[in-house]
Amino acid sequence: MTQNPSSLQSEEDNRPYQGRRGGGTAMRVIVPLQGVVQGRGGLFLGSVIPCALFYFLQLYFKRPHRTPPNSPPPPPSSDATSSPLCSPSSSSDKLSEVAILPRSLSRILLSPRGAFSLPNLSARANSIVKADNSPYFLGLHKLAEDSYHQIDNPNGVIQLGLAENKISLDLVQDWLEENARGAILRGHEDCRELNIRGITACQPHDGSVELKAAVAGFMSQVMENPVLFNPSQVVLTTGATPALEILSFCLADSGNAFLVPTPHSPGFDRDIKWRTGLEMVPVPCRSTDNFSLNITVLDQAFKQAKKRGQKVRGIIITNPSNPVGNLLNRETLYNLLDYAREKNLHIISNEIFAGSTYGNEDFVSLAEILETEDVDKDRVHIVYGLSKDLSVPGFRVGVIYSYNENVLATSRKLARFCSISAPTQQLLTSMLLDPRFVQKFLETNRWRLQKMYDTFVAGLKQLGIECSQSSGGFYCWADMSKFIRSYSEKGELELWDRLLNVSKISVTPGSCCHCIEPGWFRFCFTKLTESDIPVVMERIRRISQATKSHS
Amino acid sequence: MTQNPSSLQSEEDNRPYQGRRGGGTAMRVIVPLQGVVQGRGGLFLGSVIPCALFYFLQLYFKRPHRTPPNSPPPPPSSDATSSPLCSPSSSSDKLSEVAILPRSLSRILLSPRGAFSLPNLSARANSIVKADNSPYFLGLHKLAEDSYHQIDNPNGVIQLGLAENKISLDLVQDWLEENARGAILRGHEDCRELNIRGITACQPHDGSVELKAAVAGFMSQVMENPVLFNPSQVVLTTGATPALEILSFCLADSGNAFLVPTPHSPGFDRDIKWRTGLEMVPVPCRSTDNFSLNITVLDQAFKQAKKRGQKVRGIIITNPSNPVGNLLNRETLYNLLDYAREKNLHIISNEIFAGSTYGNEDFVSLAEILETEDVDKDRVHIVYGLSKDLSVPGFRVGVIYSYNENVLATSRKLARFCSISAPTQQLLTSMLLDPRFVQKFLETNRWRLQKMYDTFVAGLKQLGIECSQSSGGFYCWADMSKFIRSYSEKGELELWDRLLNVSKISVTPGSCCHCIEPGWFRFCFTKLTESDIPVVMERIRRISQATKSHS
Repeated sequence: MTQNPSSLQSEEDNRPYQGRRGGGTAMRVIVPLQGVVQGRGGLFLGSVIPCALFYFLQLYFKRPHRTPPNSPPPPPSSDATSSPLCSPSSSSDKLSEVAILPRSLSRILLSPRGAFSLPNLSARANSIVKADNSPYFLGLHKLAEDSYHQIDNPNGVIQLGLAENKISLDLVQDWLEENARGAILRGHEDCRELNIRGITACQPHDGSVELKAAVAGFMSQVMENPVLFNPSQVVLTTGATPALEILSFCLADSGNAFLVPTPHSPGFDRDIKWRTGLEMVPVPCRSTDNFSLNITVLDQAFKQAKKRGQKVRGIIITNPSNPVGNLLNRETLYNLLDYAREKNLHIISNEIFAGSTYGNEDFVSLAEILETEDVDKDRVHIVYGLSKDLSVPGFRVGVIYSYNENVLATSRKLARFCSISAPTQQLLTSMLLDPRFVQKFLETNRWRLQKMYDTFVAGLKQLGIECSQSSGGFYCWADMSKFIRSYSEKGELELWDRLLNVSKISVTPGSCCHCIEPGWFRFCFTKLTESDIPVVMERIRRISQATKSHS
Repeated sequence: MTQNPSSLQSEEDNRPYQGRRGGGTAMRVIVPLQGVVQGRGGLFLGSVIPCALFYFLQLYFKRPHRTPPNSPPPPPSSDATSSPLCSPSSSSDKLSEVAILPRSLSRILLSPRGAFSLPNLSARANSIVKADNSPYFLGLHKLAEDSYHQIDNPNGVIQLGLAENKISLDLVQDWLEENARGAILRGHEDCRELNIRGITACQPHDGSVELKAAVAGFMSQVMENPVLFNPSQVVLTTGATPALEILSFCLADSGNAFLVPTPHSPGFDRDIKWRTGLEMVPVPCRSTDNFSLNITVLDQAFKQAKKRGQKVRGIIITNPSNPVGNLLNRETLYNLLDYAREKNLHIISNEIFAGSTYGNEDFVSLAEILETEDVDKDRVHIVYGLSKDLSVPGFRVGVIYSYNENVLATSRKLARFCSISAPTQQLLTSMLLDPRFVQKFLETNRWRLQKMYDTFVAGLKQLGIECSQSSGGFYCWADMSKFIRSYSEKGELELWDRLLNVSKISVTPGSCCHCIEPGWFRFCFTKLTESDIPVVMERIRRISQATKSHS
């Protein structure tokens, strides 16, 4: 009987798991495995095998054949350590010297696992380290390398990004030249011992009584309408930056949020968020109403935050605002207070430009409102400082002014992390208690700011660039959207880049200020002299022309 | 047929729910209710009724008849606000003035709910506010009211709690008297503009290049054995307090922990924990070995923390230690480095008393060890400051010295919250660059500290009070356990109280330093003159005798 091929095939067909000839050995492994997998053992093996694989893999990776970066393998005898062994010394020294050489080797050899792990930073530190690629900082770095000087480096980068008032610096310098020695040492012979001791001894963390009184007095003078500031509600810190951070810690827990009208200062992203774990909920303001705060929009932002599960604890306003420079009028402040009361929120009012106002509009501090309103003072906290209004950023002086006793108590304790040094406190106390100097400074500063602002805005206008209406602060908030290639953040940053690297002007793009409309740029005019303005305008003109010809 | 009383009763018995005569109406209400409750309606009513009650109760409590504390009810016309309505003014003014009066009333009336809720502080602020009842602070408060003065107030409270070096303050004061003006203004005529500008302009947040170099040089001089400190690894802050806090933020996340040998400085409870969310795991040291750090005990503490689920990120040592004043020897430092490497931990070495050593033992900084060891520098960070070693606590100068580039980068950014002011920077740069002054100060200071320490310890010894062996710092760590009535923290605090309120000596009890053995007290001897010591000893003697006679 002949076997036809079909019957042969059928025999093979009857052995379905045999596979192809030559795969027989593999089959002898796979088939039983398949059986196991399909049985109860499968579950067990299916978990054990991957675990075992993983375990051996990680052992492999943790073996000490990896050299840690930047450190050469420890040699048995290095130049720096061989000599002590040869020199005669006491037995204990010898012991420790002998100990020097093999110790690090021996323990490493004994305990290979983890011996070369590099210690990690905290997650929060890692996010802070990475947070430095914003245009705001890149501009500052560029400036450091190639800073403009009218005579020495006329083609250098002109700094219009960082707010430093050089317009009225000469007044401060004149005062210091005349009075610094006496101020530091308060040089009456009979008081010598007391005064020098004063600048070396510890002060209360939140500032000396004298300086608090002087600062409270200065704040009263700064406000255009009469407001009395109580020194016992003043907490002094090393600048408005830690003042804002301390208030953030006091009023909100990690994960909570503040409502913040935009555009706002780029600094808020650091000061309010870095160490506190807080979030900021933007309340977009628009050019159609000169970027004024709108309570309806505020309420929308609040509700949206609530829907997202964010717990809003307060509202942070800047008045005069940065970067726009507009003022919150009385009605808006009242509406804000009512709203905060209704939603049980705190209000932080950042008033660091209160003394740097110009124009026809009156500046109204929240403190002024609260002098007449007797309700709800507990929710209002004012941040102030001397860096802007007094041209002394190097002195590092900030103020928390609160009506809430618990906030004051906590702030006084937290001021230990940012206390102003005693020599500076004495210097400043003298300066602020000189009424003629203060009055002359405030008046002259306002007049010069107005003049510089007007000149700068006029210059931009000639180039076809409109600015928003500003009544205070150090900035022109300019609409350069007609010069950006695409109406987007990307287009804005392209223009910023050309301004920095081609025109060599360092400005702050609106996206750094979280402005919702692309194309707005912040120009700080207080580091310039009048003769610098044409230089700046010429550089902007070239860029704008280049853009026109390109389009 | 007569009815006997028993049959009458039985009739009543047959009507079990009728109750007593006169309770019939109540029963007519209760019985149906009982039926309902027992039925399906019961569950529903049993939840609805309490909810409804609660709802109406809370509405009642939230009605606007409650006056907020400290504010009178808003009158329809108050004196301060009535006049603007009468005086003629522009329409917009009038609008806002009209708005002033009824606004706060109207919105409150319209939205009564929540209108009078007081805004809360954050949870972390609340815990900080309450953290002020420790003996350490109570002692300071008492002192403020009734401070000892040899002539003016010989019965006042003598401050032996706060570490301030007045022993060598005269040297600093002399230097300032001669040099302050020149230092601040660096008074060469041709440099005038530059220098005054220097003290008003913004410095880098982490300190000027000149001051960093000067501080690095000073640190090298302070170390007894030659160590080179690199200025580019220096970050300057307003004191060792913010330096420690910044490192805590950099190295650990909220909820993580540091191992800290005890007894330790009472300040750590604030500096390391308040805003960082970190925990400290105590590593108890004992009097049997002069409170020296024991790696075995360290390891036990680490393992226990791990069992509790605490993630330990590092070890914080103080060397010379506070309050004990002992030094970590070379071997212990090596063991510590090895241990940290094995467990992949950071080490923060708080060396603020490095220049205030005395006695025969050599101080060894971790920086010295790392000059010879080439491995694992990334995990070591040194905290330093000028308040102790240079007698200038009022200047507020602290140092982070790290070998880890990422830690340095993060610290430089966080230094914005605690920048030293420019006048102080200039003053200090001059002072530290005066090599004769520095050398003379360090030598004289060490000699005077030794002398004062010896005298104080001898005085205590005469009273039968032994101190631990100390080679640096400002403290005697004294064993007063024989004078406490019960060998416990309670007994210790009773003695502390008697010392403060009866003897009028403010000292720091060991429990503030988390010492595991009751009865130890920290005496700071650097605010005293030699003539004060007998006064102190006499006061202690009276207390000790009172205790003896009592027992």
